[in-house]
Amino acid sequence: MKPLEVIHSSLEKRILVELRGGREYRGILEGYDHPHLNLILRNAEEIIEGEKKRELEKVIVRGDNIVYILPP
Amino acid sequence: MKPLEVIHSSLEKRILVELRGGREYRGILEGYDHPHLNLILRNAEEIIEGEKKRELEKVIVRGDNIVYILPP
Amino acid sequence: MKPLEVIHSSLEKRILVELRGGREYRGILEGYDHPHLNLILRNAEEIIEGEKKRELEKVIVRGDNIVYILPP
Amino acid sequence: MKPLEVIHSSLEKRILVELRGGREYRGILEGYDHPHLNLILRNAEEIIEGEKKRELEKVIVRGDNIVYILPP
Amino acid sequence: MKPLEVIHSSLEKRILVELRGGREYRGILEGYDHPHLNLILRNAEEIIEGEKKRELEKVIVRGDNIVYILPP
Amino acid sequence: MKPLEVIHSSLEKRILVELRGGREYRGILEGYDHPHLNLILRNAEEIIEGEKKRELEKVIVRGDNIVYILPP
Amino acid sequence: MKPLEVIHSSLEKRILVELRGGREYRGILEGYDHPHLNLILRNAEEIIEGEKKRELEKVIVRGDNIVYILPP
Repeated sequence: MKPLEVIHSSLEKRILVELRGGREYRGILEGYDHPHLNLILRNAEEIIEGEKKRELEKVIVRGDNIVYILPP
Repeated sequence: MKPLEVIHSSLEKRILVELRGGREYRGILEGYDHPHLNLILRNAEEIIEGEKKRELEKVIVRGDNIVYILPP
Repeated sequence: MKPLEVIHSSLEKRILVELRGGREYRGILEGYDHPHLNLILRNAEEIIEGEKKRELEKVIVRGDNIVYILPP
Repeated sequence: MKPLEVIHSSLEKRILVELRGGREYRGILEGYDHPHLNLILRNAEEIIEGEKKRELEKVIVRGDNIVYILPP
Repeated sequence: MKPLEVIHSSLEKRILVELRGGREYRGILEGYDHPHLNLILRNAEEIIEGEKKRELEKVIVRGDNIVYILPP
Repeated sequence: MKPLEVIHSSLEKRILVELRGGREYRGILEGYDHPHLNLILRNAEEIIEGEKKRELEKVIVRGDNIVYILPP
Repeated sequence: MKPLEVIHSSLEKRILVELRGGREYRGILEGYDHPHLNLILRNAEEIIEGEKKRELEKVIVRGDNIVYILPP
């Protein structure tokens, strides 16, 4: 299985995205692009160093900053 | 949906752009390019570590530095 | 032997992935892509500065952040 | 409108360029290239952390380091 | 002579690889790829800031992080 | 005018090159390449945080590290 | 003159290579590649923050980390 397939099969499901600098975004994966791995999350939460900071109705996360993705 | 489509459908609407280093720009998306994701914001505000610093009539944000975008 | 062949022959086996910033992920390699070297690990553990932090059922690690991989 | 068009229409006008590391350059845009976004400024001022440091008759700023550009 | 030829002629011989952040890996070069310069080392030692940390039966070092290589 | 034309017309003239990390090199531009913007300076001075450190008969500066160039 | 020509004409002569992070390598240039600018030095010395650390019979320096090169 390819990483992209796992991402594709996560569409419309809740994932967690960890960015550089201790930021996490949890939300429903609404879309992504290839090969940049930019992601769209819906009903998302921003968690900075373990603390919930903001609720984000929709957020486009730039792929460059992603460290890892936890699929559903 | 692709991230680019969300950006495209945000044209002429208010978005928030978070850059590396704790900078935020909020303004009306006037344009963008692909694949760099350089953005033009109008009637923008610069917010550094939560504090409003400047009003910017128009600003071109380089895509390289973007961490995430909040569409309208 | 090429690095990619070693990775390929590690499929379905337990590997360790060291990322920048002192993070380690140990788990069963479920997939990878080329040339980005994004990896899918299953039944994984996150170890930060030598301490086990989390169990992760499945994780997609972005290749950009990898320092080294220990095959099984 | 594309970011490049805004830059093009700023030729021979005063712009501000913010670089990584808190440096600003203000001057008349004399030229640029694409896609690097290297810029030539004339009659420029270098401002580091809010303080004017130097007057620069002409400066070529490397696009890589640009965070944002304020058009006239 | 090209750097790649030196690497090629180091196959099955003991080399030292210095990575960013003061990490060294010494081991027998089992393979490499081009142009990424990812390397496979066998019977390797990890040395962090001059101290031996771990023995690694096999390690794939990502080329991106390499500062220099000492051939045998 | 393009940045490259300014650089080209600076050949055999004294320029200043600012690199990341507060380093300056001043010298006569003997050559350059494109698109990397590697530069050759002759009769150069290295200035680190405002202090002259070394005289360099000839130096090749890698374009990657350049922040800006002051043409003559 | 192009930077590459200066490097080519430095073959079998003593050069100094400055890397990011205050490291210097001095040695006889035995080879290089293009466009990466990876270099092979022979009979080299490693100098870290002005102090000689090691003698290196042969070293392959990755071009990515080079700040400048002093030709002979």
